[in-house]
Amino acid sequence: MSKLIVWTYDWVPEGPRGFVRDIRLRWACEEAGLDYAVHTVPFDERGPDHLAHQPFAQVPFLSDGEVELFESGAGLLHLARKSEKLMPRDPAGEAQTLQWTIAALNSIEMVSVPWWFLEVTGAQENNLAGWLESRLDHMERIFTEREWLVADRFTVADLLMADVLRVAKLRAFGNRPAAEAYVARITDRPAFRKARADQLAHFAAGDKKRAAKA
Amino acid sequence: MSKLIVWTYDWVPEGPRGFVRDIRLRWACEEAGLDYAVHTVPFDERGPDHLAHQPFAQVPFLSDGEVELFESGAGLLHLARKSEKLMPRDPAGEAQTLQWTIAALNSIEMVSVPWWFLEVTGAQENNLAGWLESRLDHMERIFTEREWLVADRFTVADLLMADVLRVAKLRAFGNRPAAEAYVARITDRPAFRKARADQLAHFAAGDKKRAAKA
Repeated sequence: MSKLIVWTYDWVPEGPRGFVRDIRLRWACEEAGLDYAVHTVPFDERGPDHLAHQPFAQVPFLSDGEVELFESGAGLLHLARKSEKLMPRDPAGEAQTLQWTIAALNSIEMVSVPWWFLEVTGAQENNLAGWLESRLDHMERIFTEREWLVADRFTVADLLMADVLRVAKLRAFGNRPAAEAYVARITDRPAFRKARADQLAHFAAGDKKRAAKA
Repeated sequence: MSKLIVWTYDWVPEGPRGFVRDIRLRWACEEAGLDYAVHTVPFDERGPDHLAHQPFAQVPFLSDGEVELFESGAGLLHLARKSEKLMPRDPAGEAQTLQWTIAALNSIEMVSVPWWFLEVTGAQENNLAGWLESRLDHMERIFTEREWLVADRFTVADLLMADVLRVAKLRAFGNRPAAEAYVARITDRPAFRKARADQLAHFAAGDKKRAAKA
């Protein structure tokens, strides 16, 4: 029996497939060679049972034996402490992995996700565009200077930053070749490709179960 | 000489005083009784020197001997590992502190800060209001059920969540008595009051230096 369990929905609509955040935890487990299983909660019914595990009625959450935690970023930092493949073990490497993981969540995604929300909800104006451009410009400078965010190696911070940036649809904001090359390189890793294929297969299987039930 | 150094601006305008995020690191150090000093970078000039420490041209950042890290959330998690007063030492307590710290950054602040940004930049419509209300409703349920986010004690997750929620100006979104009582209780702690008073005094001293220079 796997000790690590990644919890996600049993099904989601086409749109978010390949982007549901369980992909972050699958990807990290694949990178680190950690044994894990994927379990599901119903997409359609998110009552008190779901809220007891994830208080904002979202996924993923992660079980690790007696410990359970929600927030994909928290799950990544939890997994990072299990494997040197995800985070160096020296104090400076740990601190830098932590800072860039939080930067992806609170300096980039804090702007890119609401920007995207305004786009898809058809806001008349998107006042977050300038702010997002400025953040992406700062990242472009970083990626021009270095190949990885931390030291000279892949960490969970690259995993998260690449996932955040691929969702932010860089191309909507002009030519940022260093950032585009970074995202292309990180998402070409076998562990990401497997995690993405597994998520797509998981939700395709959900289609069949849903059709059988209907 | 203090080993821990909280870096902030030498001066900021009136508006953000009491809210500049160095307050989070000051507060955590005060709670834990950690020896720290506050050093400054110029508010007016944020060139390559500043960007080398904080790539988005912001503050705070934290020095801890050889280690340096930006992102207030990362600084809080770094400090939390130094003192049991900020985070329990058992695996479940650590995981819960991590998940709620990330939740404050990526589930609440990811909505509340852009919502606030649209408010202050005079957007014609604020399409983030419904999303923010939903997130605050979830938190209201949580605070109705419990006094602290983690176990039965104060942690750095409460510190951050209270700071995030006081900025989100709960009152703008109707009556949420449990959340309001939570924020009032956490921000009445002596460590917060000292951190806030120290920040206000710091920027007031900045006024005088600025006047002398002009």
